[in-house]
Amino acid sequence: MSASPASAVSVSIDLGERSYPILIGTQLLDAPSTWADLPKASSAVIVTNNTVGPLYVARLQAALAGQYPHIHTVVLPDGESHKDWSTLNQIFDLLLAQGCDRKTVLFALGGGVVGDMTGFAAACYMRGVPFVQVPTTLLAQVDSSVGGKTAINHPLGKNMIGAFYQPQRVVCDLDTLQTLPAREMSAGLAEIIKYGPIADMAFLDWIDAHLDALMARDPQALAHAVQRSCEIKAWVVGQDERESGLRAILNFGHTFGHAIEAGLGFGVWLHGEAVGCGMVMAAHLSHRLGLVDAAFVSRFTALLARAGLPTVGPQLGTDVYLHHMRVDKKAEAGDIRFVLIHQPGSAVVRGAPDALVVEVITACCQG
Amino acid sequence: MSASPASAVSVSIDLGERSYPILIGTQLLDAPSTWADLPKASSAVIVTNNTVGPLYVARLQAALAGQYPHIHTVVLPDGESHKDWSTLNQIFDLLLAQGCDRKTVLFALGGGVVGDMTGFAAACYMRGVPFVQVPTTLLAQVDSSVGGKTAINHPLGKNMIGAFYQPQRVVCDLDTLQTLPAREMSAGLAEIIKYGPIADMAFLDWIDAHLDALMARDPQALAHAVQRSCEIKAWVVGQDERESGLRAILNFGHTFGHAIEAGLGFGVWLHGEAVGCGMVMAAHLSHRLGLVDAAFVSRFTALLARAGLPTVGPQLGTDVYLHHMRVDKKAEAGDIRFVLIHQPGSAVVRGAPDALVVEVITACCQG
Repeated sequence: MSASPASAVSVSIDLGERSYPILIGTQLLDAPSTWADLPKASSAVIVTNNTVGPLYVARLQAALAGQYPHIHTVVLPDGESHKDWSTLNQIFDLLLAQGCDRKTVLFALGGGVVGDMTGFAAACYMRGVPFVQVPTTLLAQVDSSVGGKTAINHPLGKNMIGAFYQPQRVVCDLDTLQTLPAREMSAGLAEIIKYGPIADMAFLDWIDAHLDALMARDPQALAHAVQRSCEIKAWVVGQDERESGLRAILNFGHTFGHAIEAGLGFGVWLHGEAVGCGMVMAAHLSHRLGLVDAAFVSRFTALLARAGLPTVGPQLGTDVYLHHMRVDKKAEAGDIRFVLIHQPGSAVVRGAPDALVVEVITACCQG
Repeated sequence: MSASPASAVSVSIDLGERSYPILIGTQLLDAPSTWADLPKASSAVIVTNNTVGPLYVARLQAALAGQYPHIHTVVLPDGESHKDWSTLNQIFDLLLAQGCDRKTVLFALGGGVVGDMTGFAAACYMRGVPFVQVPTTLLAQVDSSVGGKTAINHPLGKNMIGAFYQPQRVVCDLDTLQTLPAREMSAGLAEIIKYGPIADMAFLDWIDAHLDALMARDPQALAHAVQRSCEIKAWVVGQDERESGLRAILNFGHTFGHAIEAGLGFGVWLHGEAVGCGMVMAAHLSHRLGLVDAAFVSRFTALLARAGLPTVGPQLGTDVYLHHMRVDKKAEAGDIRFVLIHQPGSAVVRGAPDALVVEVITACCQG
């Protein structure tokens, strides 16, 4: 409950009139300066879940009380399996029952699921109200809260219904990571590690050297990892907000990963776990296409394993993998498009022969 | 089924990279030139309803067959009462079941409900796919298909969940108006008449002089009315796409009108009927505020009556009117904001004392 001055760095997402800052630091939640200069409104609505809410919602309510006459809170059930229309509608129900107007500011307090649903609700409510991301998981701080992708799942596909809709601000209070379960720390590390092979091998070297500090939640190590991840994401999103090209590289590991999530049922593996394993498979595919050498694949796989991530996929059968990958948003006319490592530090989006993909699935999965 | 050359005028909506043409004319549905230069895709999906589908869907399928290898059709139930999530989801179900990718082009063939739902589905599917408006009602041709407002209703409010999302093109084939029921012609005339007092009294004079021809569906009269309506709407939307100011004037009559629709239950009165009656109430409120004289109100009311529109509101009780108007999207912190006639040909958005609003409701409604 400290109200002492927060220490924060700010990373900018440059998108013209939709630009916004990502604040990264400690003691941000309670500091009035964190919430200064947000759009004025008569109501703020905090959306959280039943895991994060009890930990932090009272502090956020207190921090916002001076600024918004009315503060309402919606507590959603926790977990990817609830990222659907019926849960989203709980947000709309509250907004309308409370007579919230189109200046109302929404605050997403939680992980990626809360952020995706709150952002999509903000995009749609009265055709768009402002919102703020307050990510409390490592994965959300380094990836999902940044860049304006919002969505819910459909029974036939993950994140199939959504919008590109940018927040007013992202507030990454590193203190919230101290309460995060170890499994979720690992899931977040997957998305941090992702930035190395697609954009910055020096960052991968740094992660390699500081992985123990990160897993021990050393604040300085976390601060650097979150900042550098956000800088890379900001650089990519600033060039290609709506994923007409470059932005697709951020989906490294996600094509195989989505198939794992969909094949097992959403929520059985965490998103970051599926991405971690999916990156191993994508690295193998890159190797079989002659893009990277075996040493890179071994080193990369070992790092993911050290981070506590699964590196062997579930034995769903190759047909199930192929089926789910064909409905991936990157697919065109049923042709799967993979994000592959062109050479360490640089990614490419391209197709691959089905036979080679089947080989990779067979080699990387077990029953 | 004519394939003879179509005659069309084109009105431009100027929104930078989101600019698009509105084609207005006869024999447009079957003419290949109508559909030329649309985005390439492996699939087109036509969304229509069970009233319009049997009349026109085969012709649109035939016209698009040369351009898209796969053409799928979704037939929704007709009517405002179906403009909800569960009907919208029928579109997503088909898109995903058919493996439609994010280049898929959606075609909205029908009235305002089909256009609003197809546009919102296009805005959300895979975070945005292209779509084309093919409005077959007068109301959709002169208003709802133009300008990128898309939405579904929520049990607690009309059009509360939606997006600003512009189509690639709007195709107004005037021939489709020949099959329109008289009641829907009148509903469309309400939105045409609307453009007079808010923007162009010379157009109101023209409507007055040509109302019989319009109601007899004279093609030349219809062509002028649709063109001039689209020109005025294009001028307004071009200045204020997301309704931060000027665009709100297009909601003249809609604040009272939405209360009528919501109070009676969506679909009991047609949207255009509620807007027609709502404009009478807004004109009365303008008069009571000293903005326009009684002669204007009388003349305007008489024109709406000649167009076959209700000019006396349902007796819902003033509380019901006020309740529904307070959740209108224009309301701020519960204060209702009305579009009023500042002087004939020019509108203003402002509040009004509750007592005066109650007087208007009492004077304009009956049991």
